[in-house]
Amino acid sequence: MTPSTLAIHGVHVAGTGLIGTSIGMALGRIGVEVTLADRDERVLAEAIGMGAGRPRTDDDRHPDVVIAATPPGRVVEVLSRAAQLWPDATLTHVASVQSQTQIDALDAGVPASRLVGGHPMAGREVSGPRGGRADLFDDRAWVVCPAPGCDLARVDQVRELARICGSRPLDMSVDDHDAAVAVVSHAPQVLASVLAGRLVDASDDVVALAGQGFRDMTRIAGSNPDLWAEILRWNAPSVGAVITGVADDLRQLVDALDASADPEGVNDLLVRGVLGQSRIPGKHGGRDGVYEVISVMVKDEPGQLASLFVAAGDLGVNLEDVRIEHVLGRPSGLIDLSVAPQVADSLRAGLTRQGFDVRS
Amino acid sequence: MTPSTLAIHGVHVAGTGLIGTSIGMALGRIGVEVTLADRDERVLAEAIGMGAGRPRTDDDRHPDVVIAATPPGRVVEVLSRAAQLWPDATLTHVASVQSQTQIDALDAGVPASRLVGGHPMAGREVSGPRGGRADLFDDRAWVVCPAPGCDLARVDQVRELARICGSRPLDMSVDDHDAAVAVVSHAPQVLASVLAGRLVDASDDVVALAGQGFRDMTRIAGSNPDLWAEILRWNAPSVGAVITGVADDLRQLVDALDASADPEGVNDLLVRGVLGQSRIPGKHGGRDGVYEVISVMVKDEPGQLASLFVAAGDLGVNLEDVRIEHVLGRPSGLIDLSVAPQVADSLRAGLTRQGFDVRS
Repeated sequence: MTPSTLAIHGVHVAGTGLIGTSIGMALGRIGVEVTLADRDERVLAEAIGMGAGRPRTDDDRHPDVVIAATPPGRVVEVLSRAAQLWPDATLTHVASVQSQTQIDALDAGVPASRLVGGHPMAGREVSGPRGGRADLFDDRAWVVCPAPGCDLARVDQVRELARICGSRPLDMSVDDHDAAVAVVSHAPQVLASVLAGRLVDASDDVVALAGQGFRDMTRIAGSNPDLWAEILRWNAPSVGAVITGVADDLRQLVDALDASADPEGVNDLLVRGVLGQSRIPGKHGGRDGVYEVISVMVKDEPGQLASLFVAAGDLGVNLEDVRIEHVLGRPSGLIDLSVAPQVADSLRAGLTRQGFDVRS
Repeated sequence: MTPSTLAIHGVHVAGTGLIGTSIGMALGRIGVEVTLADRDERVLAEAIGMGAGRPRTDDDRHPDVVIAATPPGRVVEVLSRAAQLWPDATLTHVASVQSQTQIDALDAGVPASRLVGGHPMAGREVSGPRGGRADLFDDRAWVVCPAPGCDLARVDQVRELARICGSRPLDMSVDDHDAAVAVVSHAPQVLASVLAGRLVDASDDVVALAGQGFRDMTRIAGSNPDLWAEILRWNAPSVGAVITGVADDLRQLVDALDASADPEGVNDLLVRGVLGQSRIPGKHGGRDGVYEVISVMVKDEPGQLASLFVAAGDLGVNLEDVRIEHVLGRPSGLIDLSVAPQVADSLRAGLTRQGFDVRS
């Protein structure tokens, strides 16, 4: 019989990459005892150096929770061993695909009563322990996917773990989770790769015309192909469904363009894009597009950005976002400052008064 | 007989939106006499207010060059009238689709000998004359597409016009141009719209998981659907070819995921993405990824960014790019500073010494 609440005194993190290290750092903030393991000793040493925890010793009491923060392909092996070593520990992981991980874990004998999948929706473009941050998960969603028949107290415990790390725990079934990440994470990766792939055999003229929009759309195409192939294969059913839907839409667009039989078809597809985009949550829970953008041209030299931001700070204006648009081959850049609409005019006036080259 | 070089004393710009106004401002820098027209008097007045030129009077001599900077659907009408009014003027435009524009213009009787299509590869997220900038075109490509049989002196004249505006003129056939923009501009727009469209009927859970990567990939999905439907229809053959290629790749990926018959198929597609992405020109003609990224956590308050950039400026470090990653619902942001690798360590050390929360 599992008690109705389970404490989190000790946590063992297996796999000390970016996510494992960050979890250790986050838990350490409130004094949770964190032990660490990684099969790469150099990586483990770096995580320890970041303050994520310490290696286990023979004297350590059993952990309350074990977190497999390894690549997805090794989660089941880690949890199987942990299940045997520590018969009372709650077993969780951070895999970006939940359904296959759960199936394989149960097949391997990991007890359903102790298995609670988890997926913190946080990441960075850098990897490895040195990218670790104690607040990586702050205010992010942390999806919690209990195995069927899991002890409710253990589900609560993993929710609490997410909260300690600063996250908002969000209960989902493994299938709902996998369908959601297929849309918001896996399909974008595929589209970025396919779009960037157009350049492989393109002429230099085509490449020369690629601008900021193309760069934004293909930024993530540079990600690790082996890791992503693994993720896509694990989430094949959901990714397949989303990508098939996208391919169908594209065929329909081509037909609409081709036949001119469906003059509204092209508009309809673009309007759906506007509607879908408007649902994306922006900064601070708001929507994209609620800020006003003020553009300022500055020289591409040390101190130029500083003087601009000092001026904005002196005017008491908070910059909600900053984008720098560079121009090929020239030593200047256009800085787009996003600010709350009610302060836009005073910022514009203030910067102009101080001699800044305000463009809009 | 057209002389071998043609001067550019007077230019008439028809259509004073963002591009027309910016061209007027750019030409004005070296004293070219610019006259302006727009069928919307308010828009015309704004362009004049921006210093883009002045309205024509009956006393004005004929322009040397006429630029139709209207929406694509009105270019031919403008050039036809100009061809009749000013029998010696070179006729150009800035349409984002060249082939259909050329065909329609020739059909409408615009003389091939005087017709030189043009497409400056510059734009902004804002539209209208008030977004105009004299240096909008600086160091951008300006594609030049002469009609078959066009006077070579007039082609030279349009190239010179592009140079006066600060651009690099780039000769292409209309078909090559349209194929290139289909890849780098029109297909990205379609993919962004189709991807964002997945959210229209998605559950709130799915929307809640949409993060920065999804936002980047769908940013342009918010663009004007009517304008884009027009562009896509005009460039239907090239857009259709690229989108069909993308759809084929997506089907192939789905098959590879489904059957597991082609275990390398998924990797191959992702590797092509990496290769393609590596060809994209970055800032100053370099490649993306040559900078080192230093991440600093700052409070989301006035003056915080300023103090960071002042510190960087004091250290003599030029910031090549800045990205601000906001965290939903919390008053802080992670600032990613891109700098040349050789100054990264000293910036990191300097900022840390000054008490900044440097994360990587």
